[in-house]
Amino acid sequence: MSYDKVMKLALERGFYFPSCEIYSDAPAGFWEYGPTGLNLKNKFIELWRRQLIRRDGMLEIDGCQIMSKSVFVASGHISNFTDPVVKCTKCGSTFRIDRYIEEKTGQRVPERLADSEIDALILQHNLKCPNCKGDFGKVGRFNMMFRVGIGPASEEAYLRPETCQSIFVDFSRVFKTMRGRLPLGVAQIGKSFRNEIAPRQSLLRLREFYQAEIEVFCNPSRLDEMPRFEEVKDTILRLFKDGEAVVTEVTAQEAIARDLVPNKLVAYYLALLTEFYEKTGIDIRKSRFRRLSDVEKAFYASVAFDFEVETSTGWLELVACNYRSDYDLKGHANTSKESLEVVDPADQKKVLPHVFELSMGIDRSIYTILEHSYYEEQVKEETRAVLKLKPYLAPVVVGILPLMTKEGLGEKARKIHSDLKLDFDTFYDESGSIGRRYRRLEEVGAPFAITIDQTTMQDDTVTVRYRDTMQQERIKVPELRQFLHNSLRI
Amino acid sequence: MSYDKVMKLALERGFYFPSCEIYSDAPAGFWEYGPTGLNLKNKFIELWRRQLIRRDGMLEIDGCQIMSKSVFVASGHISNFTDPVVKCTKCGSTFRIDRYIEEKTGQRVPERLADSEIDALILQHNLKCPNCKGDFGKVGRFNMMFRVGIGPASEEAYLRPETCQSIFVDFSRVFKTMRGRLPLGVAQIGKSFRNEIAPRQSLLRLREFYQAEIEVFCNPSRLDEMPRFEEVKDTILRLFKDGEAVVTEVTAQEAIARDLVPNKLVAYYLALLTEFYEKTGIDIRKSRFRRLSDVEKAFYASVAFDFEVETSTGWLELVACNYRSDYDLKGHANTSKESLEVVDPADQKKVLPHVFELSMGIDRSIYTILEHSYYEEQVKEETRAVLKLKPYLAPVVVGILPLMTKEGLGEKARKIHSDLKLDFDTFYDESGSIGRRYRRLEEVGAPFAITIDQTTMQDDTVTVRYRDTMQQERIKVPELRQFLHNSLRI
Repeated sequence: MSYDKVMKLALERGFYFPSCEIYSDAPAGFWEYGPTGLNLKNKFIELWRRQLIRRDGMLEIDGCQIMSKSVFVASGHISNFTDPVVKCTKCGSTFRIDRYIEEKTGQRVPERLADSEIDALILQHNLKCPNCKGDFGKVGRFNMMFRVGIGPASEEAYLRPETCQSIFVDFSRVFKTMRGRLPLGVAQIGKSFRNEIAPRQSLLRLREFYQAEIEVFCNPSRLDEMPRFEEVKDTILRLFKDGEAVVTEVTAQEAIARDLVPNKLVAYYLALLTEFYEKTGIDIRKSRFRRLSDVEKAFYASVAFDFEVETSTGWLELVACNYRSDYDLKGHANTSKESLEVVDPADQKKVLPHVFELSMGIDRSIYTILEHSYYEEQVKEETRAVLKLKPYLAPVVVGILPLMTKEGLGEKARKIHSDLKLDFDTFYDESGSIGRRYRRLEEVGAPFAITIDQTTMQDDTVTVRYRDTMQQERIKVPELRQFLHNSLRI
Repeated sequence: MSYDKVMKLALERGFYFPSCEIYSDAPAGFWEYGPTGLNLKNKFIELWRRQLIRRDGMLEIDGCQIMSKSVFVASGHISNFTDPVVKCTKCGSTFRIDRYIEEKTGQRVPERLADSEIDALILQHNLKCPNCKGDFGKVGRFNMMFRVGIGPASEEAYLRPETCQSIFVDFSRVFKTMRGRLPLGVAQIGKSFRNEIAPRQSLLRLREFYQAEIEVFCNPSRLDEMPRFEEVKDTILRLFKDGEAVVTEVTAQEAIARDLVPNKLVAYYLALLTEFYEKTGIDIRKSRFRRLSDVEKAFYASVAFDFEVETSTGWLELVACNYRSDYDLKGHANTSKESLEVVDPADQKKVLPHVFELSMGIDRSIYTILEHSYYEEQVKEETRAVLKLKPYLAPVVVGILPLMTKEGLGEKARKIHSDLKLDFDTFYDESGSIGRRYRRLEEVGAPFAITIDQTTMQDDTVTVRYRDTMQQERIKVPELRQFLHNSLRI
């Protein structure tokens, strides 16, 4: 199974691994990025900045992870951000009951199901404690936010469960000082925290995780006034609703005409997101925007599409696209008593902006890129595992391999390495057979390997070997820099 | 005062501002980066990666912020990471007493002073509660870590007070999977959290802050075996000890010969750090490595230098350089019962590595860069505020300004903007007088402004205006991309 193969590679090649793993009290749901995983993640984020933030002229901020209690009173998280739990009346273990029902019955338990209805499902299916077969008590609620106490008086505050709350709270200042104009995307990348009862599957359900969230502030009466829509009108959207047999493939323009997407603004951002994920190397033919039914949507969403990608673990939600209306700004305006209205220059009238959100899970995206890039190929007698990452996402761009260290080859190779290492992600390797060194580079997705051999000493050329085709060609050493620059173009 | 001017600029131009500022219960010590500040910070981090991580062949990881209790038992933070506090016996207010004594007496209270000695200082100076003039109780201890509870059972865990703990805990796996060789730098950038009793001065003392930490793992018997030292032997180090009248300027080589720095390894990294900060544009003549006395050092340090820079707020510690010996790995090995020894290929013997640390405060560095780059200059009748940032650190690289939007100039300018915006940080601005638009760009440190005028429509050239000299020259539009690339070279 691909999940296990990716996991093995991740552990052995420095992509990711469990946090605090030398300790037996290490809590589940915390994973670290090693050097190769971090490089891949950084390049993914740079691509996101280029293809979404800079392309669309969005503003990116970086806010605090600890936020005051008022923020989450206003956002509704204090009262609504809960998971249904049951406690075993016999052994006292606590379970996240919606997940447990899904596992046992194969039946999806919608996000908004009332506790009494969940109680009824437990009875109906005669579910018992998996540890001791005891009876479950009544369904209760567990708030998924982590509380922290500030200062000697331990004032109540929380680790944010989603990055977007800073965007809403900072909106007024950012809009004003940056001279914003609706529609305006404000974005943030950072850690969010959710006290999951049952974290699982490494990067797929974490308690501490990376989000890249974009909140597009817009005038609800101008959702079809999007001059930029022209750029993406022919981009293919893959749309889906539960119960349908297949994904509907339509251009952004057709999607609006056929009322599959409510307006130009939403269609524009779904198209931008599709184009972004195409560049990551994810197989877009295995993706879909799944339109959520009313009972599935988060408590703040009025229209919602999940961008899902098929992996060996099933369909994986990478981005939640929610039309949050004025739910957030209204909540913060009411609780803080600050006006969050802005003037739309289109009609010089004040408006409380609505919000369309693209909430991306970075860790899951990284996992999916790895799985979709992973190939096993037969090379003579052995199997090579190769990550066919886009060159601009590769954690190592080029390996520098002297065929041997004698006769000045090692020195020449170190000189080439030293000339390139400040500007490119290089890996110098002089140990082991050349075949083994190629394998190690292929496993971290390095698109190129440079070999320094006897010919190098005569004519100042090296062989460049291409990861995917395994073809080689000779290139002059002074031209390497330009070769790499060209190969990294997006 | 420069601090206030930088603060005003930061608030007005999107560098940084208080977190949750629309709420009255927003706790102190939390600040956010706006779009310009975030760009500056990202570029600072990229420079750090280039000049330290890639130059030295270090490995960078990205670990979790929430870590298990055992980690901080082993690190000593549970017992030692405390601030001395006193409670007023009358009104009940709590104060961080070492800071209070320093403020009132001008006398430095060293980090390791015993509580009884602090009690004696309170008596000696007859210090009373500043709120109600009441008497202070005995000195107590306040642990500066934030506790969080994991899962339904609320298992004890903490937000890390320094990023380096992940590096120590992950060392064994990272060293093995990345085929490390001593000396090896392992680095991390990320948030750390300290429950400061009296946070203050915006970015200078935060409760949630960014660190860039480097832990150099080394064989304590080979601290003078550093072939790379040759690269920096002539780099000037500015060394200082309390009580000395002036800074001693010596080459790294002389510093060792004169026993001002204990060994080549330490001298090498102090030199690397000096060269890095020179590139940030900080005035290096206002910097010093202050060697700490025994009583001032942190509880884990055996030799310590603080890299300090003079600002309008006084000498500011930007980097703590600590020789931590085997304090950390020994603690984690003992507590986890895992061996953290590695083989040094130099003699094929097992060794528990020692650690030399460069612990950098990113937020303070950003503040210092801003203050050292800030100039006010008289231009005819008005004063211009200009941030003379290095081009490769500038949040906005180029402003694109049509002289007017009529006669096709706006369209031409938008075309140029659209050609450059994916690859460069651009700012398109068509509103207000050209003078006002220059001022706005100067305030965010944009090194170049491009003006599109009538001549552009005739010969496809634009004027490029240089921020610092205010000189202008005409450049052909197709050459802009290359011009910008060249200007951004480090």
